[in-house]
Amino acid sequence: MTLVVQKYGGTSVADLDRIRNVAARIKRHVTAGEKVAVVVSAMAGTTNQLVGWVHGLDAAGYDTAEYDQVVASGEQVTIGLLAIALQTIGVPARSFLGWQAGIRTDAAYSKARIVEIDPRPVLECLDSGKVAVVAGFQGIGPEGRVTTLGRGGSDTSAVALAAAIKAERCDIFTDVDGVYTTDPRIVARARKLERITYEEMLEMASVGAKVLETRSVALAMRHHVRVQVLSSFEDKPGTLVVDEDEVVESQIVSGIAYSRNEARITVLRVKDRPGVAAAIFGPLAEANINVDMIVQSVSRDGVYANQTFTVSKADLPRALAVLEKAKDEIGYESILADSDVVKISVIGVGMRSHAGIAHKMFATLAAKGINIQAISTSEIKVSVLIAEEYTELALRALHTAYGLDKD
Amino acid sequence: MTLVVQKYGGTSVADLDRIRNVAARIKRHVTAGEKVAVVVSAMAGTTNQLVGWVHGLDAAGYDTAEYDQVVASGEQVTIGLLAIALQTIGVPARSFLGWQAGIRTDAAYSKARIVEIDPRPVLECLDSGKVAVVAGFQGIGPEGRVTTLGRGGSDTSAVALAAAIKAERCDIFTDVDGVYTTDPRIVARARKLERITYEEMLEMASVGAKVLETRSVALAMRHHVRVQVLSSFEDKPGTLVVDEDEVVESQIVSGIAYSRNEARITVLRVKDRPGVAAAIFGPLAEANINVDMIVQSVSRDGVYANQTFTVSKADLPRALAVLEKAKDEIGYESILADSDVVKISVIGVGMRSHAGIAHKMFATLAAKGINIQAISTSEIKVSVLIAEEYTELALRALHTAYGLDKD
Repeated sequence: MTLVVQKYGGTSVADLDRIRNVAARIKRHVTAGEKVAVVVSAMAGTTNQLVGWVHGLDAAGYDTAEYDQVVASGEQVTIGLLAIALQTIGVPARSFLGWQAGIRTDAAYSKARIVEIDPRPVLECLDSGKVAVVAGFQGIGPEGRVTTLGRGGSDTSAVALAAAIKAERCDIFTDVDGVYTTDPRIVARARKLERITYEEMLEMASVGAKVLETRSVALAMRHHVRVQVLSSFEDKPGTLVVDEDEVVESQIVSGIAYSRNEARITVLRVKDRPGVAAAIFGPLAEANINVDMIVQSVSRDGVYANQTFTVSKADLPRALAVLEKAKDEIGYESILADSDVVKISVIGVGMRSHAGIAHKMFATLAAKGINIQAISTSEIKVSVLIAEEYTELALRALHTAYGLDKD
Repeated sequence: MTLVVQKYGGTSVADLDRIRNVAARIKRHVTAGEKVAVVVSAMAGTTNQLVGWVHGLDAAGYDTAEYDQVVASGEQVTIGLLAIALQTIGVPARSFLGWQAGIRTDAAYSKARIVEIDPRPVLECLDSGKVAVVAGFQGIGPEGRVTTLGRGGSDTSAVALAAAIKAERCDIFTDVDGVYTTDPRIVARARKLERITYEEMLEMASVGAKVLETRSVALAMRHHVRVQVLSSFEDKPGTLVVDEDEVVESQIVSGIAYSRNEARITVLRVKDRPGVAAAIFGPLAEANINVDMIVQSVSRDGVYANQTFTVSKADLPRALAVLEKAKDEIGYESILADSDVVKISVIGVGMRSHAGIAHKMFATLAAKGINIQAISTSEIKVSVLIAEEYTELALRALHTAYGLDKD
């Protein structure tokens, strides 16, 4: 008997009609002979409302365990309603809160990590012929208090549960029908991928593709959980995220992602000597600001150089304040900042064995007259920073250049 | 150090401003040196919304444990928010769900009874100098599933917790400022009682005074928990519900209650022979219809009699259908029904030692030309059924007759 985990996000259980639809879909799988454990999020909007209440209290200096107590209530509603909707159409079901499902986490309230899942409660439920409906996003900490996993945590709950009960597959139902070669709203010729490797998915998630949360992909990779991303509104296969050896015909490039969440900072005329990078990036790290791409321009005169790097748009004002404060220690002339930039990333495990991927990227962009402001690479990814106004042009040109267009 | 339990209902925590007010009030008690355990309900309206969702699913044949899973989520929100509001104003606090507070119930989902409360979690919290904020209305059943106690269950949670931790007092904060000699909206001269005995409160709750739920009063009486009913919007003493020996100057009559939730049924011309009462009330009992006041008129001819009794207004249509169906077995001529009636009850432990209480009631009503349709008495209560249109007149006349008017 096939054992599967299905995860439904907030938009899939946003109202009673959608909950009924989800129940009907689960029933089809049960009727087809599958044992189904379901992980659900709170109704869309609920978690934001709960968080809004905490902020509305002008809360200060409070215990984050209490924040978790409040926000974990959203999933409690949807698991109960979904279990009732299933029972109403004749499908035996039982709901489980995080602690009832044996989902044990560390004590990092509001961003807890799953330490261990005791598979017995859910397996006993499945073995008794019932669907197990498990609250995503939450667990129980070492002090017996409710914890939450942070935003997107329900994906992580689903993958971890699938690993714990050794499910054949973890189906993530969402409002898109799979993973695309690039954003189909921008590139009409984008194709849905049948399969993608964990590493590619991980890179795509980390550079802006919002289909799956990074943590859940990393967890799936570590435990070899086959993840499928598919639509909760249509009944057709989605994209399978799997081990590299399961991807039969590997493309050299699998996808092109972009992130508008970048801002560029250039520190002009810093002394070109050892220690200056530390003087710049030390204070930023202390302020908990992540620096992404870094380019140090070669010094022309051997005395001064420029240092360019990116931070997230949200961090830009803070980063500028930190640098202004550290001006004397760093010793620079002035600072340029630009938030009208976009990071474009070409991703594919095939890069490991194929040369020329980066060169094709640079040549394609050059042919369209697009200037590259920064470059960074990983084993299976090349990212460039360009002016934001070229986003669509660059995506379409690269999509064609790497042979990703559908017929 | 005084140990008190405070309970705040749904209207007292209906929004963030009110939650802040509750936190400020608790702070005053903590600053005055009290150890405080707080029991809270869900925000006003929340439980109705949650129940509405279950009904909106056209739910049928579902497991009531899932209903409890859904509706218990409301208190989870308020305990977390109140704990955060307390911490924000410098009062250490910790929230507890029913299962975290060791509130164990039976498995009668949606109307569970508290079996036992393990006092240790809450006492440890209080001993560590924190306010314990406990979810009312909920507990944990024998199978490790969430249970709810039914409507008004938060009062019961508070009293049971006060008994378990041996609190000096259980303060029930609500939207009225105490228990009155009668409804002050009808009788302007109604007085707030300083003290009332458990038995009187129990009778008042059972005949329509909605201040405290019957179950919670019975529990307080059994465990000798001193309960205070007071306003969450004003800062003044309310009414203490206590053992009889704590009431120093006992009034003969403490209060006059009324219930419009009555309907009268008269079965005309039944045979005046043994077994006929059983023939009438047997089918009603089987249909789970509670019969309250019963009057059997004396037979004039020795052959036929009339049988009058009351049921709740909500049960009237079902009661009539049951009697219609059993017409042949009972053997009656016809049935009269009247729902324009009210039950007026005079209550006081002083009745035990004073004669003439019932007589004064009948004489007072007669002097106003009010006809009595049925009478029932208990050790500390006399109830009469009269036409509903006389409600206000009867209440005012009796209030004056028993010397309850304030100066």
